[in-house]
Amino acid sequence: MPAGEATPPPGLAPEDILALHDGAVVMLDQTRLPGEVVHVTLTGWPEVVDAIQTMVVRGAPAIGVAGAMGVALAARNAAATSATRQAFDAEMGRAIAALRDARPTAVNLAWAVDRLAGIVADHEGDPGEIADELAVAARAIHADEVDRCVAMGRHSLALMTGGARILTHCNAGALATGGYGTALGVVRAAHAADPTVTVIVDETRPLLQGSRLTAWELQQERIPYTLISDNMAATLMAEGRVTHVVVGADRIAANGDVVNKIGTYGVAILAREHRIPFIVAAPTSTLDLSMASAADIPVEERAADEVRGLSLFGRPAASPEAPVTNPAFDRTPARLVSAIVTEQGVHRAPYERSLRQAWDDAAH
Amino acid sequence: MPAGEATPPPGLAPEDILALHDGAVVMLDQTRLPGEVVHVTLTGWPEVVDAIQTMVVRGAPAIGVAGAMGVALAARNAAATSATRQAFDAEMGRAIAALRDARPTAVNLAWAVDRLAGIVADHEGDPGEIADELAVAARAIHADEVDRCVAMGRHSLALMTGGARILTHCNAGALATGGYGTALGVVRAAHAADPTVTVIVDETRPLLQGSRLTAWELQQERIPYTLISDNMAATLMAEGRVTHVVVGADRIAANGDVVNKIGTYGVAILAREHRIPFIVAAPTSTLDLSMASAADIPVEERAADEVRGLSLFGRPAASPEAPVTNPAFDRTPARLVSAIVTEQGVHRAPYERSLRQAWDDAAH
Repeated sequence: MPAGEATPPPGLAPEDILALHDGAVVMLDQTRLPGEVVHVTLTGWPEVVDAIQTMVVRGAPAIGVAGAMGVALAARNAAATSATRQAFDAEMGRAIAALRDARPTAVNLAWAVDRLAGIVADHEGDPGEIADELAVAARAIHADEVDRCVAMGRHSLALMTGGARILTHCNAGALATGGYGTALGVVRAAHAADPTVTVIVDETRPLLQGSRLTAWELQQERIPYTLISDNMAATLMAEGRVTHVVVGADRIAANGDVVNKIGTYGVAILAREHRIPFIVAAPTSTLDLSMASAADIPVEERAADEVRGLSLFGRPAASPEAPVTNPAFDRTPARLVSAIVTEQGVHRAPYERSLRQAWDDAAH
Repeated sequence: MPAGEATPPPGLAPEDILALHDGAVVMLDQTRLPGEVVHVTLTGWPEVVDAIQTMVVRGAPAIGVAGAMGVALAARNAAATSATRQAFDAEMGRAIAALRDARPTAVNLAWAVDRLAGIVADHEGDPGEIADELAVAARAIHADEVDRCVAMGRHSLALMTGGARILTHCNAGALATGGYGTALGVVRAAHAADPTVTVIVDETRPLLQGSRLTAWELQQERIPYTLISDNMAATLMAEGRVTHVVVGADRIAANGDVVNKIGTYGVAILAREHRIPFIVAAPTSTLDLSMASAADIPVEERAADEVRGLSLFGRPAASPEAPVTNPAFDRTPARLVSAIVTEQGVHRAPYERSLRQAWDDAAH
């Protein structure tokens, strides 16, 4: 899949979203959806860092996979150009540090990069062998993420009711995980079990992952949905048009506090007000048990132009000088979370205990 | 002010926003802000209907003023072209019905049009005299709206605290009322009394009245503000960055339920969750005491393309076929409203009594 080549609307196989080839990482460019379905081919680790930062790839599990693929790509290139193991290690150190820090909030990126960094550190063989091993490990992380999503979807069926009308925020779909999806994996599983299931898609300002990505994914899967502006969710809830809220997570603290896309916290308050279950679907790799609560988890402040750069019917919506704040994520306290679904099962409050058990069961 | 002529950034005098001339209604085109400051000149009542429907003018009090000016304009034209009083009345009947029904939710439009229709019905003189009287009445409604806003601002000072950080939704400003503003009148008065007052502006999807209009007004007035996406309000509240929420209203029921721009209800729930006062500023002309609650107040469903027609950095944000729901307003129950400010004063629950008193005091 060379850069710029359009592909037909896929059934969204994992390799359509993210793939590690020999000497290249190939990604579906999520910034160009839904208007264009285009893949980009990245041949060096700095391009992978850039793709993560500019959200060509986004979603906590998917950027973890991309980070791992970036490390593997760095190793392949460094093995070809480094005269000594020392030179190889120096280049890998640069790649690992930059990939690990490409975005600050999701824990998956650091987790995946650290896992591959451990292989480099522990390996006494030559760079070519290390590169081979890293490629295997990166592809395994990708396959594991998809397997975990399928398991989450299976577990979540216990939380669904007939004819569920599921509201979701942002994109925690196949695009966000590298295949199947966390929150949208729950939706996929629910719809497969009951074809009357429908979805309400929050558009998710500022970057509109709901209208750009989630709506597009559901269209590919022929799952019926209705797109709304974020601020319509409360009214649809009051009218009985939402039976469940299902979202993903970028990081979950030991006490069950959830860091996820900006707007999640507000939706959680609205769900509580309307007595609607608020369900978080995330793999155990999203757990950060070193954080007692979400209070200390860093939240990325992104560029003001994401808020100002909108136009409606071709007319600019804001002054280019408007003062803006743009936190990319928010913190939802555990008390608003009805259940957390991981690949290990459905977890309930008190989360300290249930999440620790899930972590141990996953044998991290 | 001929059509299409740009004006310098105004201090937003009432006649800069809406003016009735002999044979024309001149309006600041709010659909073109903030990019262009342009006035349109409307010479027939059907153009006024169209301007109200396409939101060249918007905001409950302002469309009431525009409707009244439309009736006066219709009378001036009909007086010049009707051979008989009967022909004049027939044309006025068409104009009044169309202007009254141009938009369904705000009560001010029907109120203002009916007031002028009463003058037509009661007047036994010739059409030219009627037209003169209607012009005086339309301008008086405009002046009264502005006077009411100034009174609301004065009363609301009792609700403010030093260094208030006021979140507002949509545009209930000078643009929405024909001058000074209801919610932004409260902001203007608070800032005049205490220059450390600042504002958080919700962008207000789908039509972005916050980023397009409220931010522009505050810029004209040099009142410091921060623009946010609607879904960031909860986080700013949790961080202590909002001390008051102040919004306008399109219609208020006898029990204090408030119908206002979509998103208001959600903000009211979030304010309650964070123990932040939720204040509604609206003239008594917004009261509809014939409605026991908001349940029976009609809510306009607007075009799907308002939700789909967005682009970000020049890229379309949604498929043009995405299924959408687009309610233009929502219903905030009285239990979430801390206070309602009218030109008569500050009203508290139980609203049945306090709003009835305000209505009687206003001598409607």
